[in-house]
Amino acid sequence: MQLYIGNQNYSSWSLRAWLIFAQFDVEVDIIKLKLFTKDFYRTLENIAPTAKVPTLVDDDVTVWDSLAILEYINEAYLGGKAWPSSAKERAKARAISAEMHSGFFDIRNELPMNCRAKRKTALSEGAVKDIARIDAIWSEQMEQYPDGWLFGEWSIADAMYAPVALRIQTYDIALSDKARRYQQKLLNSPAMQRWLAEASLETDIVEEDEAGAPIPALFLTFQLNH
Amino acid sequence: MQLYIGNQNYSSWSLRAWLIFAQFDVEVDIIKLKLFTKDFYRTLENIAPTAKVPTLVDDDVTVWDSLAILEYINEAYLGGKAWPSSAKERAKARAISAEMHSGFFDIRNELPMNCRAKRKTALSEGAVKDIARIDAIWSEQMEQYPDGWLFGEWSIADAMYAPVALRIQTYDIALSDKARRYQQKLLNSPAMQRWLAEASLETDIVEEDEAGAPIPALFLTFQLNH
Ligand SMILES: N[C@@H](CCC(=O)N[C@@H](CS)C(=O)NCC(=O)O)C(=O)O
Ligand SMILES: N[C@@H](CCC(=O)N[C@@H](CS)C(=O)NCC(=O)O)C(=O)O
Repeated sequence: MQLYIGNQNYSSWSLRAWLIFAQFDVEVDIIKLKLFTKDFYRTLENIAPTAKVPTLVDDDVTVWDSLAILEYINEAYLGGKAWPSSAKERAKARAISAEMHSGFFDIRNELPMNCRAKRKTALSEGAVKDIARIDAIWSEQMEQYPDGWLFGEWSIADAMYAPVALRIQTYDIALSDKARRYQQKLLNSPAMQRWLAEASLETDIVEEDEAGAPIPALFLTFQLNH
Repeated sequence: MQLYIGNQNYSSWSLRAWLIFAQFDVEVDIIKLKLFTKDFYRTLENIAPTAKVPTLVDDDVTVWDSLAILEYINEAYLGGKAWPSSAKERAKARAISAEMHSGFFDIRNELPMNCRAKRKTALSEGAVKDIARIDAIWSEQMEQYPDGWLFGEWSIADAMYAPVALRIQTYDIALSDKARRYQQKLLNSPAMQRWLAEASLETDIVEEDEAGAPIPALFLTFQLNH
């Protein structure tokens, strides 16, 4: 099975799909392509109809979207355990995950994922609203599952919100205590630390995803782990 | 069980969720709210955290996104039959559905859904690409399932692409023969005809979704059924 991903420093959708493999130790070959390069498009051309990452190839099965990959791995390799087992909680987890999949545009535009960086930026009204909504989702779930994942056990919803936890770190955005606890749990999890370690080894700069000046790597590594 | 939807003439996300109930005759109370009105937000405020339609309430379960609603109904009421039964086809159907859920922005912006209208409009390069991709998806599936739904039997993927079939009609957009056959099958299905009949009874104008001058209703009804 092959999972095509982009630069780990930048590719938020790749991270979402990658996490389920890391979290449950599902065997997969990771093929990393440099975003927006000729090689990227040449490789994906004959694999993914959208020529985007993440794309999963499992023998004769091809899946070219993060959420669809997460659903596929959950069904084909995890016996469904990556969603909550209660129908009610599963519905909520799917709604929250779909909300991320199709929304939060202001955060996505204004705060591109950039694992290496540490920035300060002014937020638009829309981005402030997005952050407030994310804070509300995380806090509500932490009331129900103190110190747990969003639905107690790790679920696809946690994968969907992982890049935003990184962005909040990168751009130094304030959160309520409960939401902050969840964000820290996520960032400090072994799977996320592995992603961050791998991202920190990358040296390519993707101009499209840069905003402001880079900051020395040592400082960043420290920040990312605290 | 209650499904909150918007004006049927305009609300593309509502249509996607509504279709699974109509297609499989799942009992539900439809509560129609007029988009962007005070009543809309006042009603949804305490129900859906995003205050958007569609939102489903099934006793103590609330689901506030079209794709999550489709997944929920499929699991809770249809024994899974709204996705293809083969894992491979299900993965593809989910990828195609996710592609619609998180993309095709140019079509969504330039060609707002408007069941009543019949328009001509110039398309941007992005919208032309979107249409070409939709044509490719539909044609490829029609090669595999001639005269069928996208995956032979009706599936959630058909619900996801229904609004675009309407938009292509409204804005009179050219399609390849195979894609056109699928589009016509979709538009002429009993569930879609019921939606269109209900939409045609609405008189409210949502300025946000209007582009160009309205066209007499009789003419439109004719166009929509042919
Ligand atoms: N809806 C897709 C989005 C995938 C996406 O936009 N991926 C970006 C990288 S994070 C990409 O491949 N960009 C390359 C391009 O757009 O040419 C998903 O959920 O997987
Ligand atoms: N991702 C959501 C999108 C829902 C959505 O944007 N709904 C529109 C109507 S089609 C809405 O409620 N708009 C009201 C608003 O944005 O205030 C879904 O798939 O259900």
